[in-house]
Amino acid sequence: MKIWQKNIDVDSFVETFTVGNDRAMDLHLAMADVLGSLAHTQMLNSINLMSDADLAVVQHELKQIYQDIVAGDFTIEDSVEDVHSQIEMLLTQRVGEAGKKIHSGRSRNDQVLVDLKLYFRSEIQRLVEQTDTLFQKLIQLSEQYKQVLIPGYTHLQIAMPSSFGLWFGAYAESLVDDLEMLKAAWKVCNKNPLGSAAGYGSSFPLNRKLTTELLGFDDLNYNVVYAQMGRGKTERILAQGMSAIAATLAKFAMDVCLFINQNFGFISFPAHLTTGSSIMPHKKNPDVFELIRSRCNKIQALPNEIALMTTNLPSGYHRDLQLLKENLFPAFQSLSDCLEITAFMLAHISVKENILDDPKYDYLFSVEVVNNAVLEGVPFREAYRQIGLDIDNGTFQPSKEVHHTHEGSIGNLCNEEISRMFNEVKAGFGFDKVEKALDKLVK
Amino acid sequence: MKIWQKNIDVDSFVETFTVGNDRAMDLHLAMADVLGSLAHTQMLNSINLMSDADLAVVQHELKQIYQDIVAGDFTIEDSVEDVHSQIEMLLTQRVGEAGKKIHSGRSRNDQVLVDLKLYFRSEIQRLVEQTDTLFQKLIQLSEQYKQVLIPGYTHLQIAMPSSFGLWFGAYAESLVDDLEMLKAAWKVCNKNPLGSAAGYGSSFPLNRKLTTELLGFDDLNYNVVYAQMGRGKTERILAQGMSAIAATLAKFAMDVCLFINQNFGFISFPAHLTTGSSIMPHKKNPDVFELIRSRCNKIQALPNEIALMTTNLPSGYHRDLQLLKENLFPAFQSLSDCLEITAFMLAHISVKENILDDPKYDYLFSVEVVNNAVLEGVPFREAYRQIGLDIDNGTFQPSKEVHHTHEGSIGNLCNEEISRMFNEVKAGFGFDKVEKALDKLVK
Amino acid sequence: MKIWQKNIDVDSFVETFTVGNDRAMDLHLAMADVLGSLAHTQMLNSINLMSDADLAVVQHELKQIYQDIVAGDFTIEDSVEDVHSQIEMLLTQRVGEAGKKIHSGRSRNDQVLVDLKLYFRSEIQRLVEQTDTLFQKLIQLSEQYKQVLIPGYTHLQIAMPSSFGLWFGAYAESLVDDLEMLKAAWKVCNKNPLGSAAGYGSSFPLNRKLTTELLGFDDLNYNVVYAQMGRGKTERILAQGMSAIAATLAKFAMDVCLFINQNFGFISFPAHLTTGSSIMPHKKNPDVFELIRSRCNKIQALPNEIALMTTNLPSGYHRDLQLLKENLFPAFQSLSDCLEITAFMLAHISVKENILDDPKYDYLFSVEVVNNAVLEGVPFREAYRQIGLDIDNGTFQPSKEVHHTHEGSIGNLCNEEISRMFNEVKAGFGFDKVEKALDKLVK
Amino acid sequence: MKIWQKNIDVDSFVETFTVGNDRAMDLHLAMADVLGSLAHTQMLNSINLMSDADLAVVQHELKQIYQDIVAGDFTIEDSVEDVHSQIEMLLTQRVGEAGKKIHSGRSRNDQVLVDLKLYFRSEIQRLVEQTDTLFQKLIQLSEQYKQVLIPGYTHLQIAMPSSFGLWFGAYAESLVDDLEMLKAAWKVCNKNPLGSAAGYGSSFPLNRKLTTELLGFDDLNYNVVYAQMGRGKTERILAQGMSAIAATLAKFAMDVCLFINQNFGFISFPAHLTTGSSIMPHKKNPDVFELIRSRCNKIQALPNEIALMTTNLPSGYHRDLQLLKENLFPAFQSLSDCLEITAFMLAHISVKENILDDPKYDYLFSVEVVNNAVLEGVPFREAYRQIGLDIDNGTFQPSKEVHHTHEGSIGNLCNEEISRMFNEVKAGFGFDKVEKALDKLVK
Repeated sequence: MKIWQKNIDVDSFVETFTVGNDRAMDLHLAMADVLGSLAHTQMLNSINLMSDADLAVVQHELKQIYQDIVAGDFTIEDSVEDVHSQIEMLLTQRVGEAGKKIHSGRSRNDQVLVDLKLYFRSEIQRLVEQTDTLFQKLIQLSEQYKQVLIPGYTHLQIAMPSSFGLWFGAYAESLVDDLEMLKAAWKVCNKNPLGSAAGYGSSFPLNRKLTTELLGFDDLNYNVVYAQMGRGKTERILAQGMSAIAATLAKFAMDVCLFINQNFGFISFPAHLTTGSSIMPHKKNPDVFELIRSRCNKIQALPNEIALMTTNLPSGYHRDLQLLKENLFPAFQSLSDCLEITAFMLAHISVKENILDDPKYDYLFSVEVVNNAVLEGVPFREAYRQIGLDIDNGTFQPSKEVHHTHEGSIGNLCNEEISRMFNEVKAGFGFDKVEKALDKLVK
Repeated sequence: MKIWQKNIDVDSFVETFTVGNDRAMDLHLAMADVLGSLAHTQMLNSINLMSDADLAVVQHELKQIYQDIVAGDFTIEDSVEDVHSQIEMLLTQRVGEAGKKIHSGRSRNDQVLVDLKLYFRSEIQRLVEQTDTLFQKLIQLSEQYKQVLIPGYTHLQIAMPSSFGLWFGAYAESLVDDLEMLKAAWKVCNKNPLGSAAGYGSSFPLNRKLTTELLGFDDLNYNVVYAQMGRGKTERILAQGMSAIAATLAKFAMDVCLFINQNFGFISFPAHLTTGSSIMPHKKNPDVFELIRSRCNKIQALPNEIALMTTNLPSGYHRDLQLLKENLFPAFQSLSDCLEITAFMLAHISVKENILDDPKYDYLFSVEVVNNAVLEGVPFREAYRQIGLDIDNGTFQPSKEVHHTHEGSIGNLCNEEISRMFNEVKAGFGFDKVEKALDKLVK
Repeated sequence: MKIWQKNIDVDSFVETFTVGNDRAMDLHLAMADVLGSLAHTQMLNSINLMSDADLAVVQHELKQIYQDIVAGDFTIEDSVEDVHSQIEMLLTQRVGEAGKKIHSGRSRNDQVLVDLKLYFRSEIQRLVEQTDTLFQKLIQLSEQYKQVLIPGYTHLQIAMPSSFGLWFGAYAESLVDDLEMLKAAWKVCNKNPLGSAAGYGSSFPLNRKLTTELLGFDDLNYNVVYAQMGRGKTERILAQGMSAIAATLAKFAMDVCLFINQNFGFISFPAHLTTGSSIMPHKKNPDVFELIRSRCNKIQALPNEIALMTTNLPSGYHRDLQLLKENLFPAFQSLSDCLEITAFMLAHISVKENILDDPKYDYLFSVEVVNNAVLEGVPFREAYRQIGLDIDNGTFQPSKEVHHTHEGSIGNLCNEEISRMFNEVKAGFGFDKVEKALDKLVK
Repeated sequence: MKIWQKNIDVDSFVETFTVGNDRAMDLHLAMADVLGSLAHTQMLNSINLMSDADLAVVQHELKQIYQDIVAGDFTIEDSVEDVHSQIEMLLTQRVGEAGKKIHSGRSRNDQVLVDLKLYFRSEIQRLVEQTDTLFQKLIQLSEQYKQVLIPGYTHLQIAMPSSFGLWFGAYAESLVDDLEMLKAAWKVCNKNPLGSAAGYGSSFPLNRKLTTELLGFDDLNYNVVYAQMGRGKTERILAQGMSAIAATLAKFAMDVCLFINQNFGFISFPAHLTTGSSIMPHKKNPDVFELIRSRCNKIQALPNEIALMTTNLPSGYHRDLQLLKENLFPAFQSLSDCLEITAFMLAHISVKENILDDPKYDYLFSVEVVNNAVLEGVPFREAYRQIGLDIDNGTFQPSKEVHHTHEGSIGNLCNEEISRMFNEVKAGFGFDKVEKALDKLVK
């Protein structure tokens, strides 16, 4: 069944090609689609395009379908093109004529647009909550191991003393900035496109502010041409928000793979969380982190992929945009998995103590010695030149004590400040308002 | 002169390769470098690492250098590696010993980090102001031509009536969401990395909150390892923010190139703003918009380029990051040019009236006719089927009047709401606070 | 069952994460895996690491498994990690001890490497053959419609006369160059990595030239470290080869979407090969071509995605590489679909005659008029200036006849030369040699 | 001066925007432009569109200009739009009327197309020759250090013995496959687009085969629409060819940065080829290799950038394509620099002997021990299990001798086979034919 089917049979080859994986992707939109219809029908009733009686049966049945979806009792039949047709068909089967009326004042285009925005909001919220969990774990490890020193590298050369406190804390703070990007994406998502019809509005006297309020959106995509233009753009921006988190996880995974390498040997994981080799019995491979890195680098490629698929398309809907579902939807689950498994692995990490006892790390302390000379009055450039000569002559004698006290340094990690920043950014999303609106809608 | 030069001569081939275009790029950082040194030296004085007398001469001379830069009287000499060395050298030439002390408690790494953030802030502010100018122009054109109808396309097929009011307004509203992304980038930029030294902090008792306040930053990059990790990441995020605006301009340029094409013929520009052909005397080519499109698509490629250059680098500084200047710095000017010339061209655009009189646009009104039937009580799917038959039979008779009244539609553009959103996002940057702090610093 | 499993249970969460979609992807490699084992065991026998008796039972059973795979009677069980384990398990179940010996002198790494290369070769061959079909169709249409003129555009401005002969032929010739890229990828694929073990070779006296010959490879990946380095690199190069074809199809699809648009109206397709609209009954949307464009742009993003996932990984295997299967394997089917459906759609295309009768196309002939003046002895720049004045004054009178005779022009399409080039490139693949070798191996 | 300038003044703002950096980029095309004109005018004479007398003066003067360019005595004046106008202007100043005739039967479009292809050919040849130099250096080092063992890593875990012979040789062999990609790009470049005019051919009876022969092209871009379509496509394909080499160099640079790190310590360079730190006097940073990595990763981003700038442009010339010069032209020099400096650095590399004496590398030999057991008749899986137990129990005793003999292994590097492959690919370019043709043209 295709809703736009008139009396012409579409060649099945063409159909298979055009539908593609859309049914599988659309399952993710089922809840959102019902939410949109619940709001749309209330609005239709408010402008006298749906009778109170029709509204009552339609709302009752939509809520029933919503419960079915929540319970996992919902599928898209093979003969049905997409999730929207499936839900409309179920509704019409159950409530008859009234079901047919819900499409008034709405196009498939704005229906999809609002479904996507509702779905994206729920995925963003999930990601933010998992990011929070990981953030807390990183802060906890930073505090736990703040006394354990490690070498700090620049140019991958041994440079200056660092610590596990700094290392874990750095990735925690990285997530703060990442969340800024995701919040920008949230703000772009949290505007209502419903009522833009096929991108040129409707002659019905729709009340778009009402659906905005019912669905808990912050504001409208006012201009109907822009509402449609948001397709593809929203996906690209959201992918950029996700790529920020992904970049942090990938970098962390790279560090882990390096630090677990036997030439570094700074950290380890229990054997059951690493994998062996089919031919080298001694190996304990960090496959989990290699796959985090790889998955996250793939997510980093996503904004570009979306850009390539949408660039130079003139304004107005193009079917090209359908395919963005296949890129973006699985990326949510993949990033969510990466956040979850990173936190899980970190619950099992072991760090090595006394790493800096190895004499190869002596030079880490050269800057300390320069600075001490400066504090005793030697001009910096001269102190620097003197230590350089000592090193060249093999007479360099480091003091291995670190007395860093300023904000963000080994002795003063400022993890409470970093946590404050995280909480401030998180609070800016305003998930409560959205949850309240949706709860009201489905009850 | 290279500051890290000990008694070893670096091969000139290697030197040319490693310095690359860095001097030219560094000129952009000159003002920021002085600002950073003004704040750093005040802070050194506050923790007794610089005497009041030294501070006085250093500040006086730095402010003089700042004025020279503003006046265009500043260059980086060929024998000098970068802008930081040039300024330090000038200072030392002029004030002697005191000049050498400004490097205490600071590494080249955090010096560059803070310079970049200060420079990025000023470039973001410029872009936001130019975006504002373009936004106002689009809103004005939207209002001016809100009565002039054009065809709306979906699948690039003639679909439903649209208007120049909708078309111009859509791109105005697009800039609102773009600014959200740029604001996220601003927030990432507006934190102080100074004091992180080479990425592992300093044994000096630096007061990083003081420099944060002096430089007008909102907050600190607390964790010193994270502060360094911001290099590359900040650039990528900023490029993503710029790519949002670029994508809007590129899409607009594509529309313009289509609408100026003789098969559409919706708009035109005066002959002196188009270009001719070496072999076809009648051509009026929209080169400006083709180049806007091309430049903006290039900017859209920038985040990916940065990702490719930074992905899978472990934490800690790598020289790779230097090359990001060559990607990002020219992109600021390019995007700025595109914003300016788009606004300039729009000041000269002519739109064609009465486009829809052409009978090929009759079908635009089919949805109107369906909707009218629905309003008279015919179920949507049946009305739709009947009009389809009329069209197939050639008996379709459109009414060419459009009565769209809902929010964001042809008859109710909501440009004041869109302007409100724009102003809200813009206000969130807080440029005033930054300007005040910097004014105080250089006076 | 995991082959590297010793006495430690891998946490199921980790297992799910690490296995991912690998089983589904691995099904594509089943035939290749058997082919590799057939060659490897013959070689083991030749160096006395497998007895004649063992070889006989192993070869017999492997050929049986091969037939099962061809017949579609092969699956990877949920308890089995990958295709290699599945086949080894089946073999061991059926032939006992002998089955365990096939892993001698081979690592999972080089087993996967050779499987990938064998699989890639078969996919490349399929793509080349489908490209050939499309090429022939384009050439046929070019010949069929060589008399039908259309406007040629530059800057999307009406420029000079063109023809359907030129338009179809251009895309045919484009495929010739695309095939050069795919052939380079083929050459990179057509070298034998088997025997490189885990990337550092084996202490067994393997005869790598024998497996090279048995598997029909052109040559070896000699250096074992390089053989392993080919993972990821081969995928990226192959994706680049595919992206060449994809770019041609995407551009063609863009042209089709433009030419089918009612403002151009140059071509059409039967109604059953276009799709309607849920709200606009008159629409005949070119969804197939929009999806070709979108799919092919997605394929164009693939090389970059692979680059992002592999860049800055040091030499040696990393688990990251596993995920490349998920990017590349589905792209083969997608590109194959696009080639097939483009040829299918072209079998149903209708072209409009007499397009140039419309007076808006008169200026197309201005260059002709200039050139005629030149042939009569007027210097080019002067003739050009005169026609420009005629056009400005409205006195331009075109002759609408086109007499282009040079190679590749409207009157002399050189399709036989283009076909010759296509055939030359195609012949360079040498599919025959490969087919012969593989036929011998499985018989 | 703009050639297409009629009596209308183009606003200088627009002019600055549209010309951009084109003059600077165009200098690279000067020689190619003269070569194209030399061939074009000979052809015009052959079809009686240029008299023998005119041809003689034009050829003489063009050859003079060519010598000026070779001598570095050529610039594009600020008042002149591009290189083509500059050369045409010089010619007309010197030879009068005859100079104006060279534009007959040629458009700026095909003039640029052929210039680009000629320029690309010369750049490809330079890259191939530099690749050859680097290849020879790598092979030489591979032979020189074939006895020096290093650890081989998988998953960045210590895995099996490797050698400097393998490591250097792997990158040599990598260049062989890279050259296949560059050769495909060469083949795409080595076809003649001249005579395609503005993409729709010419009414002049051009002899395109003659210019093909004169310019040493292998064949024609026959179809004139395709010839124009090659713009952007050729650049993308060429960038892909370059990205292959770039990826190899970047990976090698990553290995170098890792191996020079003190935790590995496998290699070193003299102090004057590394760089120091402004704050850490003991550092010897591998800046050259970090910048090779970064530059090459930037080149890896180039094909995608070009794709983003050209995707979804319909057929026919667009001004967008001009900007591709700014991406691609500097990349030639950058890649050339990277090839040169890599070879230069390798001439100064020191490798550490006896690395494997360190007991942390003992497990490298576990596979050897397994294999020895297999050779003594123990089934592989059982031998593997036994060694695993020995390792777990701390009773593993490695024999540190490596006896790998098969093709491409430590004891049998097959560098002469790899060299043979390199020479075969290189010979396929056919530079001789091109050089001969061009020599004849300018003499």
